[in-house]
Amino acid sequence: MIRPAELIRRKRDGEELGADELADLVLAYARGDVPDYQLAAFCMAVYFRGLSTVETFALTDAMVRSGETMDLGAALGRRVVDKHSTGGVGDKTTLVVGPIVAACGVPFGKMSGRGLGHTGGTLDKLESIPGFRVELTVEQFVAQVRETGLAVVGQTADIVPADKKLYALRDVTATVDNVSLIAASIMSKKIAAGAEGIVLDVKVGDGAFMKRLPDAQVLGETMLELGRRAGLDVVCLLTDMDQPLGRAVGNALEVREAVATLRGEGPPDVGELALEASAQLLALSDLGIDRADARRRAEQAVADGSAVAAYERWVRAQGGDPDVAALPKAPFVREVFTPRAGHVQRLGALPVGLAALRLGAGRVTKDDPIDHAVGVVCAKKRGDPVEEGEPLAEIHARDEDSAAEAAADVLAAYELGDEPPRPRPIVLDTLG
Amino acid sequence: MIRPAELIRRKRDGEELGADELADLVLAYARGDVPDYQLAAFCMAVYFRGLSTVETFALTDAMVRSGETMDLGAALGRRVVDKHSTGGVGDKTTLVVGPIVAACGVPFGKMSGRGLGHTGGTLDKLESIPGFRVELTVEQFVAQVRETGLAVVGQTADIVPADKKLYALRDVTATVDNVSLIAASIMSKKIAAGAEGIVLDVKVGDGAFMKRLPDAQVLGETMLELGRRAGLDVVCLLTDMDQPLGRAVGNALEVREAVATLRGEGPPDVGELALEASAQLLALSDLGIDRADARRRAEQAVADGSAVAAYERWVRAQGGDPDVAALPKAPFVREVFTPRAGHVQRLGALPVGLAALRLGAGRVTKDDPIDHAVGVVCAKKRGDPVEEGEPLAEIHARDEDSAAEAAADVLAAYELGDEPPRPRPIVLDTLG
Repeated sequence: MIRPAELIRRKRDGEELGADELADLVLAYARGDVPDYQLAAFCMAVYFRGLSTVETFALTDAMVRSGETMDLGAALGRRVVDKHSTGGVGDKTTLVVGPIVAACGVPFGKMSGRGLGHTGGTLDKLESIPGFRVELTVEQFVAQVRETGLAVVGQTADIVPADKKLYALRDVTATVDNVSLIAASIMSKKIAAGAEGIVLDVKVGDGAFMKRLPDAQVLGETMLELGRRAGLDVVCLLTDMDQPLGRAVGNALEVREAVATLRGEGPPDVGELALEASAQLLALSDLGIDRADARRRAEQAVADGSAVAAYERWVRAQGGDPDVAALPKAPFVREVFTPRAGHVQRLGALPVGLAALRLGAGRVTKDDPIDHAVGVVCAKKRGDPVEEGEPLAEIHARDEDSAAEAAADVLAAYELGDEPPRPRPIVLDTLG
Repeated sequence: MIRPAELIRRKRDGEELGADELADLVLAYARGDVPDYQLAAFCMAVYFRGLSTVETFALTDAMVRSGETMDLGAALGRRVVDKHSTGGVGDKTTLVVGPIVAACGVPFGKMSGRGLGHTGGTLDKLESIPGFRVELTVEQFVAQVRETGLAVVGQTADIVPADKKLYALRDVTATVDNVSLIAASIMSKKIAAGAEGIVLDVKVGDGAFMKRLPDAQVLGETMLELGRRAGLDVVCLLTDMDQPLGRAVGNALEVREAVATLRGEGPPDVGELALEASAQLLALSDLGIDRADARRRAEQAVADGSAVAAYERWVRAQGGDPDVAALPKAPFVREVFTPRAGHVQRLGALPVGLAALRLGAGRVTKDDPIDHAVGVVCAKKRGDPVEEGEPLAEIHARDEDSAAEAAADVLAAYELGDEPPRPRPIVLDTLG
């Protein structure tokens, strides 16, 4: 019989718990047999004492077992790949990677969360496409991956219910910030969703959960180890989030930028990250090719138009209109002009994200509505030269007042100097 | 507006919270406006980060304000004194101190908790007296203190409801063990009960919550400071709990020993502690006497029979039969014989307490019934010489099997040696 208070005390005192004990605790919590207040105290003890690798895997495995699991590979008769990003400002990578991978003949089926944040999650971005449906049944999802090669849908409640319940609790008890709990939350969902090859994109910088590279490396290594123990092939990219990814921040604006990137006309950082993630995914797939070959195929899919064609098939399959002209537009567009000439030294991801949030592009609580049209487009990014009187960014707003407020916020996010800063690549490190 | 998750995070990160913020949090929790799970996470953060003196007082004061407070002094037109013990094995001090103080003409009105533990709390001990009622209304309580000079009753729900709720939560979330939270819990009840002079008895040793003297000193100093800030006169005794207090451990057995002590025929440690605590209480009272004079009066009350007479009046006033012959007796009494001659080097309070608990003298969960008759009487205590074949202790049990089990446990609690150990006084230190 499980004694939660005793497990809390032992974790509080720095003991390592048995894998079975942790699994019992988590599964009893998921069933409602252990109350929220005991898990809240437990998570705070974990915040201070940490979890060992064995404990973290036991937690992850129990969360997977708390609900249904999918075997997408068996359903398709193919090895399925998946990607996950820890989230950042302007991150539209899935919208580019999915079509590239599908264009290269590898099935890509992803369950995505909605999440809180400065801008919406991938689902919100997709919902800015008129007609796009993210709620498919599991059967519809599998059928679409089989027929179209690509589907992105909302996560069903049946997958990893323990994580859903635990994350909601951690969110209101200041116990989100723990590497083991974060890694278990992410990896349990990936394991349950049934992909065998996974590319993780851990964002690093002021706009990301992980502010410093060493912390991101620890999270990445923890997730790699959890993947290994679950028998999966995992690669982890550590990528820059010290400035927004690409130029567009805001749902419809990001879809537009993703489509441009699929045509080879997007910002260089989004293009490079999407190609690199696609190459890693293709190399983990059943194509049996190495990473260099995979990279060439990904580039080819962009160059020959097959990637954008895959995007259009996908959007139509989920009921949406793939024409970017159909995307909603904000009524007020206002430019943010530079106060001086020089080079952009820094462009804070966090302040730009917060400006987009205040414009209505994101949500603070899970029931907040999202304004798909609004956001920020950063014309100038780190390292770019700026002439006197040039615009730094564009604000897309619902009204003049919010546009003016956002303009001031975005201007403050820019740091200008005489010399260009040292260049920083988009992919900082690759693990696994 | 209060944001509990933000307060939890700041405490988690080691920040000192504002007194108003803490008060808002505790009062909102008491009202049910903040859920258990947020307070559970908060208490665990406090476990790791601690509370400053200012924070601890804010918590204590808010708990007092969460319910009704009594002004016993105003009701009686007298300065009222009260004592509190942090609890230990064989602690029947209140049953001796109350009558001594009352016999010396100082009103003693105490609200007591029931508590969990190896043996019952003071209320359970009193309930082993046939007919004794511990549930009085506030009016009956005040009237009895006025007329009889002495009343001990159960704590009403109206007093410090925040502590009641918070303690129940801490008990199941491994967050009891924090000096600030313990001090706030004890002192909020003392402050709300309305006494102006308070003697605290902090137990130190293996049978107490505080195992080491320095930790007990910190708890004592913390409570003294909380008392000072609330405008009360407080003295704190730090007393030995490395062996049971007195010889008797078990409810009716302890009442019998308390009466013997009131007649001057009890074990020396109980007698000395009761006289010392009584002297401190009398010196804090409105008698206007110093501690030396107070001690003489307490000794006189025992010597001249007025203390035991006060006990009898008190027990009758609450409906009980003061004749010790009326106390329940266990059907099986079994002696525990020494395996060798020598001196008792150690007699563990904790193992004796656990043996009494297993006999049925205490409770593990708050709804467990208590067997008032059973327990252990330690004929030999630390420093006592033992002849070969002499009994060390007596087991009072409901049946032979439990008696045999307890006998083995109690024997294991004794450590025998050739030379007597260094003597250790019952009162280790006095603060305030």
